[in-house]
Amino acid sequence: MEGSPERHSKKKVVAVVGGGLVGALNACFFAKRGFDVEVFETREDIRQAKIVKGRSINLALSHRGRQALKHVGMEEKIVSQGIPMHARMIHSLSGKQSPIPYGKKGQVNLIILSQNTSLLFAETYPNTKLNFDHKLQDWSAETGLMTFVRPDGSTEEVEADLIVGCDGAFSAIRKQFLRRSRFNYSQTYIPHGYMELTMPPINEEFAMKPNYLHIWPRNTFMMIALPNMDKTFTCTLFMPFEEFEKITTGDEVIEFFQKYFPDTIPLIGADALRRDYFRLPAQAMVSVKCSPYHIGDKCVLMGDAAHAVVPFYGQGMNAGFEDCIVFDEIMDRFNAVLPEYTRVRVPDDHAIADLAMYNYIEMRAHVNSKWFLFRKHVDNFLHFLMPRAVIPLYTMVTFTRTRYHEAVERWHWQDKVIHFEKIIVIWDSFEVVTLSSPRTNGVCDSHWVNNSSF
Amino acid sequence: MEGSPERHSKKKVVAVVGGGLVGALNACFFAKRGFDVEVFETREDIRQAKIVKGRSINLALSHRGRQALKHVGMEEKIVSQGIPMHARMIHSLSGKQSPIPYGKKGQVNLIILSQNTSLLFAETYPNTKLNFDHKLQDWSAETGLMTFVRPDGSTEEVEADLIVGCDGAFSAIRKQFLRRSRFNYSQTYIPHGYMELTMPPINEEFAMKPNYLHIWPRNTFMMIALPNMDKTFTCTLFMPFEEFEKITTGDEVIEFFQKYFPDTIPLIGADALRRDYFRLPAQAMVSVKCSPYHIGDKCVLMGDAAHAVVPFYGQGMNAGFEDCIVFDEIMDRFNAVLPEYTRVRVPDDHAIADLAMYNYIEMRAHVNSKWFLFRKHVDNFLHFLMPRAVIPLYTMVTFTRTRYHEAVERWHWQDKVIHFEKIIVIWDSFEVVTLSSPRTNGVCDSHWVNNSSF
Repeated sequence: MEGSPERHSKKKVVAVVGGGLVGALNACFFAKRGFDVEVFETREDIRQAKIVKGRSINLALSHRGRQALKHVGMEEKIVSQGIPMHARMIHSLSGKQSPIPYGKKGQVNLIILSQNTSLLFAETYPNTKLNFDHKLQDWSAETGLMTFVRPDGSTEEVEADLIVGCDGAFSAIRKQFLRRSRFNYSQTYIPHGYMELTMPPINEEFAMKPNYLHIWPRNTFMMIALPNMDKTFTCTLFMPFEEFEKITTGDEVIEFFQKYFPDTIPLIGADALRRDYFRLPAQAMVSVKCSPYHIGDKCVLMGDAAHAVVPFYGQGMNAGFEDCIVFDEIMDRFNAVLPEYTRVRVPDDHAIADLAMYNYIEMRAHVNSKWFLFRKHVDNFLHFLMPRAVIPLYTMVTFTRTRYHEAVERWHWQDKVIHFEKIIVIWDSFEVVTLSSPRTNGVCDSHWVNNSSF
Repeated sequence: MEGSPERHSKKKVVAVVGGGLVGALNACFFAKRGFDVEVFETREDIRQAKIVKGRSINLALSHRGRQALKHVGMEEKIVSQGIPMHARMIHSLSGKQSPIPYGKKGQVNLIILSQNTSLLFAETYPNTKLNFDHKLQDWSAETGLMTFVRPDGSTEEVEADLIVGCDGAFSAIRKQFLRRSRFNYSQTYIPHGYMELTMPPINEEFAMKPNYLHIWPRNTFMMIALPNMDKTFTCTLFMPFEEFEKITTGDEVIEFFQKYFPDTIPLIGADALRRDYFRLPAQAMVSVKCSPYHIGDKCVLMGDAAHAVVPFYGQGMNAGFEDCIVFDEIMDRFNAVLPEYTRVRVPDDHAIADLAMYNYIEMRAHVNSKWFLFRKHVDNFLHFLMPRAVIPLYTMVTFTRTRYHEAVERWHWQDKVIHFEKIIVIWDSFEVVTLSSPRTNGVCDSHWVNNSSF
C-alpha cells in the first residue's frame, strides 16, 4: 500500500470493515486522498431502521478527536451537534455539588452521540460507498479477498488493496491476526459492569445543570450522568458484577439508591428505577491491547479493534480518531506505511489503555478525597509557577496532541519533581500559604487541573 | 462435576483432549479415581508411526512434577528413564567451564523426553482409552458434546461429563473460552526464537560432561545443551529473530559460531552446522495467561492450554503436572471443584509465567557477571546463617511445592531484607570476610543457590 493513488494506473480500493465512528471517519480520510472507499457494516442501514438497536455510552470529544475531524472538514458539523462540558460536578452523599473544571478557560470536552454522528460522516465524500447488512465471514491477508454474508444467506466476495479493520472491540478482522504466530494480544475484563438509566427532563428542561459531567464517586462503585440533546441525562452506574447481582427486587433498588445516590431518586423517578434496573443485565467492559496492527501490506487495525480501552479517561473515541490522522500523516512521509504505523502507534495506544485502567481506580476512589484535592492544588500551583515545566497529565492527554506515551513519561518525571517540591512546600508551608492564598483563587478558576478524566 | 464417581449410578466419563504429557498424566489421575477416561489426540498413534513428527525441547523434571508422578505410581518408571543433572555448566567465550550447582546435595533436575514419556503413561490404567487421529472440530460447554474429525474426513461425536483441555499452547478447547464474555487472556511472543542443533557422541560417549545443563550465556542471546539417552546433546540456540535472519550462508554460520561459541564447532561439526542451521527456521516462543480456567461444570483447562510459559525456568512441564495434583487435591475437599481450581491455581500459574519471563533476561545477561555471582554468594551465605528465614527463590520453585505465588512474594520480601543486610555486609566487610572465608567454601559446595533456572 503506497501513499497516494494517483501514481497508479488503476485506482486503489480501500475496504473499511466496520461502519462505526472510527470506520466512518477513516472512510473520509481515505476518500479525501482520492482512494475508492467501500465501507462494510454488519448492521442494517440505520437511516432506514425503525428501531435502532445497540446501546450507546455517550462519548466525550476532545482535542485529538477534533483535530482529526478538522482534517476532513467535519469539525464544525460535529461540534454544532454536541453539548460542551466545562467541568465535572461532584455529588457528595449529602447531595452537595462541587464543580471541578477540566482545564483552563475554553478547554472543554464535548459530548456527542455515536450513532447520529456516524451518519453525519456517511455521505460527505462521493467516492465512498456504504454497504450495510454485510457480515464478514472470511478474508485473506495475502490476496485482500473478503467474503461477506448477506441477510438472505447468500455470500458476496470483494477484493481490496487495503483492508482497514475498524470493527470494534470484538473485531472479526482481528480473529485472523490471532491465528498467526508472533501476534501479541491481551483482553482484560474489569470486575465492574455498567448499567444505563435515563433521567428525564423536568418541565422540558434538563433535570440538572447540563454543561457538566455529573459524578457520584462512592469508592468501590460510582455513577456518572451525561447530558443528551433531547434534555435527558444518561446515568451510568459502574459497579462490580456481584454487587449488581445482589439487588434482585425493586425495593432493593430503591434501598440501594436511598443509601448511595439519594439525590437522584426524585430526578430519575422511583418507578422508573424499579423498572429500568432490570431491563438489561449489567454490561461488561474490556481492555484490549495487541501488536502488530498490520499483516503484510494488505490489512491494518484501527480504533477499538486495535485498542479497546475502559471508558474512564474519556479517550476511547479520541484515540481512535487520532489513529486516522496518525495513519494519514505516515502516508505523507513513508512508502512502507503499515509497519511504520505499527511502530509509531502501538506504544501510544498501550499508554492510553493503561491510563484508562489507572483512572478506573482513581475516579471512584480519589475524586472526593481531601488529600487528592490538596494534591491537585499543589499540581495546579506548580503549573501556575512553571507553566512550561509542569503540565498536568489530564491537560496533556485531553487538550494537546502530545503522544500518549510521552505524556505518561513526562507525568512520571513530573511526579518525582513534585514529590521533591512537596517537601519544600511542607517545609515552608507558612510562607507558601501566605504567598499563594491571594492568588490561588484565581488559579483555581482558570487553571484548575486534574488527572482524572471525566 | 462432583468429587467421586462412586456416588453416582452411572459412571462418569472424563474426556481428556490432548495426549501430550499433561493429558497423559491427567488420564492417570482421573482413572485412578475410577472415572472412565477417554484421551483424544490429533496426531496418529506414535507407537505405530514410522516418522515421529514434531520437535521436542528436552524437559526438566523437578520436585513438583515428581510429586504428581508419585501420586499415580509413575515416579520410578519415569525417573529411571531420565538423566540426572546436578549443576549448570557455564561456558565462557574462552572455552572455560565453571559449574554452578542447583541446590543442596541430592537436589537434582532430571531431563526427560516428552514423546517417550507420554507413551509410558499410556496404558497404566485399564479404564483409560486412547483415541489417536481425533482432531477436535467443535464442542459445547453446555452439553459436553464434542465433534472430532477423522483422517478420512468423517466426524465422530462424543459426550463427556467433564472435558479437560490439555491441548497445549495453541489449544483448540481454549478458542471457545475466548468467545465468551469476561474471559481474560493474553498471549505474548518474545523477540527471541529458538533453533535446535544436535551434538553427536564421540567414540560412542557423550561429547561433553553429561550430568550438566551446559550454558553459553552471551547477553542478547545464548545457547544451552541438554543430554539425551542416546549420548547425543540437543543444543538450543536462543536469539532474536532478526539475528537469525542476518545469517544466510554456511560461511556466516561458521563465522558466527567462531565468534561466540568456538568450543562447540569441533563438537557439533562444521559441516553439520552449515547444513542444520538452515533445516528449519527459528521457532517462536509464547507466554499465555488466562482466567478463568473453567466454563460452568463441564470444562477445565490445564497445562500449556491454561498457561504456556517461556522455557527459561524449566518449570513448564512441572507446573502442568502440578495442575493435575492440585485438581486432585481439590476434588477431595470440594463439591464445586472447577471454580475452586480456578481460584487456587490462576495466581500460581501467572506467577510461574512471570518468573519464566524474568529469567528470560536473567539467564542471558547475568549468569556470568561478577556482580551476579557475588550476589549469589551473599544469598547463599545468608541462607547458611538463617536456613529457615532465607530460602533462595530457585530452591523454593524447583525443590519444594511452595505455591508459586507465595514463593514470589517471599522472594520480594527476602530481597528487601537482603538489601538491608548487604549494607551491613559492606559496612563490616572485613569482619564478614574473616568470619566467612573458611566456611563459605563448604557452603558453596553443599548450599550453592541461584535464582536462574537452568
